[in-house]
Amino acid sequence: MSKLRPQDAERRAQRPDSANFSEALARGLSVITAFDDERRRMTLSDVARAVDLPRATVRRALATLVGLGYVEVEGRLFRLTPRILKLAAAYLSSNTVSSILQPVCERLCQQVGASCSVAVLDGDEAVMIARAVPARPPSVGLGVGYRLPAFCSALGRALLSGMADEDLDAYLARLQPWRATRQTVIAKPEIRRAILDVRKKGYALVDQEAEVGIRSIAVPLRRFDGKPVAALNIGVQPEQVPARTMIGEYAPLLLQEAVALQEQLV
Amino acid sequence: MSKLRPQDAERRAQRPDSANFSEALARGLSVITAFDDERRRMTLSDVARAVDLPRATVRRALATLVGLGYVEVEGRLFRLTPRILKLAAAYLSSNTVSSILQPVCERLCQQVGASCSVAVLDGDEAVMIARAVPARPPSVGLGVGYRLPAFCSALGRALLSGMADEDLDAYLARLQPWRATRQTVIAKPEIRRAILDVRKKGYALVDQEAEVGIRSIAVPLRRFDGKPVAALNIGVQPEQVPARTMIGEYAPLLLQEAVALQEQLV
Repeated sequence: MSKLRPQDAERRAQRPDSANFSEALARGLSVITAFDDERRRMTLSDVARAVDLPRATVRRALATLVGLGYVEVEGRLFRLTPRILKLAAAYLSSNTVSSILQPVCERLCQQVGASCSVAVLDGDEAVMIARAVPARPPSVGLGVGYRLPAFCSALGRALLSGMADEDLDAYLARLQPWRATRQTVIAKPEIRRAILDVRKKGYALVDQEAEVGIRSIAVPLRRFDGKPVAALNIGVQPEQVPARTMIGEYAPLLLQEAVALQEQLV
Repeated sequence: MSKLRPQDAERRAQRPDSANFSEALARGLSVITAFDDERRRMTLSDVARAVDLPRATVRRALATLVGLGYVEVEGRLFRLTPRILKLAAAYLSSNTVSSILQPVCERLCQQVGASCSVAVLDGDEAVMIARAVPARPPSVGLGVGYRLPAFCSALGRALLSGMADEDLDAYLARLQPWRATRQTVIAKPEIRRAILDVRKKGYALVDQEAEVGIRSIAVPLRRFDGKPVAALNIGVQPEQVPARTMIGEYAPLLLQEAVALQEQLV
């Protein structure tokens, strides 16, 4: 076993089950996540800087990933190969997502001419698992795997509204709200009120609090037994659709989809 | 370092750079890929069986993945969390895919009322990186990350047609064709001819050789400097659209998209 650096020893000590933790695996995964849309090609030094690990450690992780076909190298530049999609196969080729949720997004997107997504909660973020955007530019937002902070997005508040009270309390206690845009509400009592409002009204409406230029309305999706599992939204550019249209027309549409989906989600 | 089992020692010996290879990382990744749409929840024993590794090794990998939030456990059942999408973020939230290729798929899908995909080559398979399917059932095929063998699919042959001659020869030399359906052509000279035909005609048309009930037409996509980087297809149910319509109407549509896309792909 390689020698631990002080900061690794500290990280490890914070883990509940540190004896059963593989640093090599954790470091390899951090190398993979260092690549993103802004950093698609990196040198060994770029990666080492991005993950804050020694070059020798990163070299070994990269050599392993190259050997397995997840990374390719062109000159001094490393980049992920499409094989990386295999790691997300359980999500990407899930029957529920591809045969139920993605078609709903595409149908709604076509019907209202606005972007439409399904998201689930990952930690304190809403992550898109299905998504359709209008073909005509300017297209709003990004694709599957895109993340938004839960506290200030409509999808996030719809997801948070499904939490048990004690989980919501714990979430709000650890939350450190920040201004994602000039409109972002950062007062915790107001955030709590907005989340509890979703339980009463059935939808969350958020105006440019998560992203400038996006007004979004979202509803929780429940599975067959009533457990909230996801959220469905429609996002528009504020100047195109007034809030009253979103409440009067989009909310009923979304709620109707949520009811129809409930028996199909297991 | 843990003791190598004979089969691991053999696997490792086959690797070019075995000293610089992390078994812990490779095993962890194999645990992740063991989960798929058919095996979304597994016990420790299920996973150990699926990846053919000792329980202790798998337990450590799972504990690490749970610690990092990529896996969650409910009772005795492990499953991936949506955090796993972060590993594919460089692909999923790529600007090219979400702002250029996905909208093209959605527009074409709407225009012709059939599924439309963009795929890239991963080893000997075509893997979908963007995809739109008609909202009305029966929906054909699956989502992003879905894979087809290259030798018998239209997307695959369009991708293979872009290979340099020596790479194509090497591909055909190692290829062991099998019958994916009753229609699959497995004679190598015929497969070679079909691939070379794409270079002449500009498109690949394949009738139920990769999947029963799917007729597909595909064209190569080239980037700004002429290098083939992906393929674009339209897939239909054979009884809905005759081959002559696909050649007469869909091929020109796809070729037109390919020309328009070339300057945008970098």
